[in-house]
Amino acid sequence: MTELDFIDQLKILATHPAARGLADDAAVLPFGRHKLVMTHDMLVEDVHFLPSADPADVAWKLIAVNLSDLAAKGAKPLGILMGYSQASDAAWDNAFVRGLKEAISHFRTPLLGGDTVSVGKGGKRALSLTAFGEAKGHIVPARSGAVPGHAIYVTGHIGDAWAGLQIATGKADATDIETSAALLKIYNRPEPKLEEGRALSSLVSTMMDISDGLLLDASRIAKASGLNLEIDLDRVPISPAFKTLFGDDQAARMNAATGGDDYQLLLTASPETVLPIEVTRIGQCRAGTGVSLKSNGESVELPESLGFIHT
Amino acid sequence: MTELDFIDQLKILATHPAARGLADDAAVLPFGRHKLVMTHDMLVEDVHFLPSADPADVAWKLIAVNLSDLAAKGAKPLGILMGYSQASDAAWDNAFVRGLKEAISHFRTPLLGGDTVSVGKGGKRALSLTAFGEAKGHIVPARSGAVPGHAIYVTGHIGDAWAGLQIATGKADATDIETSAALLKIYNRPEPKLEEGRALSSLVSTMMDISDGLLLDASRIAKASGLNLEIDLDRVPISPAFKTLFGDDQAARMNAATGGDDYQLLLTASPETVLPIEVTRIGQCRAGTGVSLKSNGESVELPESLGFIHT
Repeated sequence: MTELDFIDQLKILATHPAARGLADDAAVLPFGRHKLVMTHDMLVEDVHFLPSADPADVAWKLIAVNLSDLAAKGAKPLGILMGYSQASDAAWDNAFVRGLKEAISHFRTPLLGGDTVSVGKGGKRALSLTAFGEAKGHIVPARSGAVPGHAIYVTGHIGDAWAGLQIATGKADATDIETSAALLKIYNRPEPKLEEGRALSSLVSTMMDISDGLLLDASRIAKASGLNLEIDLDRVPISPAFKTLFGDDQAARMNAATGGDDYQLLLTASPETVLPIEVTRIGQCRAGTGVSLKSNGESVELPESLGFIHT
Repeated sequence: MTELDFIDQLKILATHPAARGLADDAAVLPFGRHKLVMTHDMLVEDVHFLPSADPADVAWKLIAVNLSDLAAKGAKPLGILMGYSQASDAAWDNAFVRGLKEAISHFRTPLLGGDTVSVGKGGKRALSLTAFGEAKGHIVPARSGAVPGHAIYVTGHIGDAWAGLQIATGKADATDIETSAALLKIYNRPEPKLEEGRALSSLVSTMMDISDGLLLDASRIAKASGLNLEIDLDRVPISPAFKTLFGDDQAARMNAATGGDDYQLLLTASPETVLPIEVTRIGQCRAGTGVSLKSNGESVELPESLGFIHT
């Protein structure tokens, strides 16, 4: 059974409205006068991170990817609970704790509990994290609210994490050390868009974080909202560092748009809505299905893979 | 580094009062007018369950052990988030979903979200679960409130899960099928004492669930409260089924008191307090440290291992 088949089976069980059909970034549950927003992600060694990765970066990423889900719902983080696997490697454990300390201090999100298990020497580590937060607005944006005519926006630059991964795996080399370090940092130490998410959440028709690739995540909004997302590849915001390394042609932009690990926000809103922070308009919602791409005013064929599908 | 060393490092980071020093069953956070109670446990294949275990039982246990932590804090469960590992075994996945369905229906606790990862064919499964709930009282019992003179109580029978484990692993045989099935069920399908926990929570000085063995868990209350727990082995409530299989002598009672997986509640309260449900008084709190055992009015030496320490 594939992961999608399994999730389909879980969806049949997850009938509570707070589960949002298991088709959103987080669960959203009314609690007192506010809304509790909760998300739970796992990182598994050899699947989501390499044994050679810096354990401090793994700790950071474990927290950041979950906080990014809260950011996408406009929630303010209140705390995390962590499940940790020990594999009889004190140096790894120590480095992990160092990264954990940096992340909970940087994100001002307290560690409130969790569990530690042993997987034995050489065992594959499985790390789990639950992050929860509070959404104060009446509306917590879902993936399902876009309507034809709404504009599509992203925060920040797209593709820098992909560029960092190319450097980390030796597939590309930045000519200067500073550029290289900056892109590696974006890949290894993602910054969830928490403030941006809170500023935007009451004004958007949909919002999600870009974790698996812009095009793949856009296709999820298209599916949930029942329409087509037309994205102008020329408008996808690419950083100067990315351009220096990989150029600015269609192939380079396609890598940026499918690379994943951006942890930027993807959102739709009425084009009349004035958004309070800087975002880049990259396309518009239309009647139809799926994602369409254009460049120079002409239709562009979709790549075989829209992003990174975890298997 | 041992698990305890690692947790000591985490304790230094977990300074938020809601974390309760990582020394309680759950985190307790004020949220609006109520208190949010949250717990996160992992089950790892070959450590917490055998590859030969019925996956439906594993699903049940994953939920039950977390709900038992909520029970110990008098919290009403509101939902769960689950992290699941797929190991390319559709039959296992299907049986797990069946047990999950039974448990969320039985415990009336909705599945609200989570994550699914693949660990590959033959990979060791790691399962994680966060359960959260709401405590309405002003006081959410901790492990640290006992004072000398308070009585020690437990709910239900102690040792039946240990007896079930002996049957499951072929180390013991019940003479009749009914007894055997009943003990196996207590081991495989624990019933967290949710109603009992809510009924008791405002009246106790400490409360926790018994997961790793009565004596080991009692030693945790002793440590957190800074006193001695004197337990009368003769008063530990043993079921008729347990007695039929293992007798009622000191050795048998010691197995019951150290066996673990009971998921009963262990609590202390003033002996004057009238408790609203049936519990068994098994001893009293005194000045001192640790756990002391007596039987027939005489002191009994503590066994080498007080319970099941997960390594």
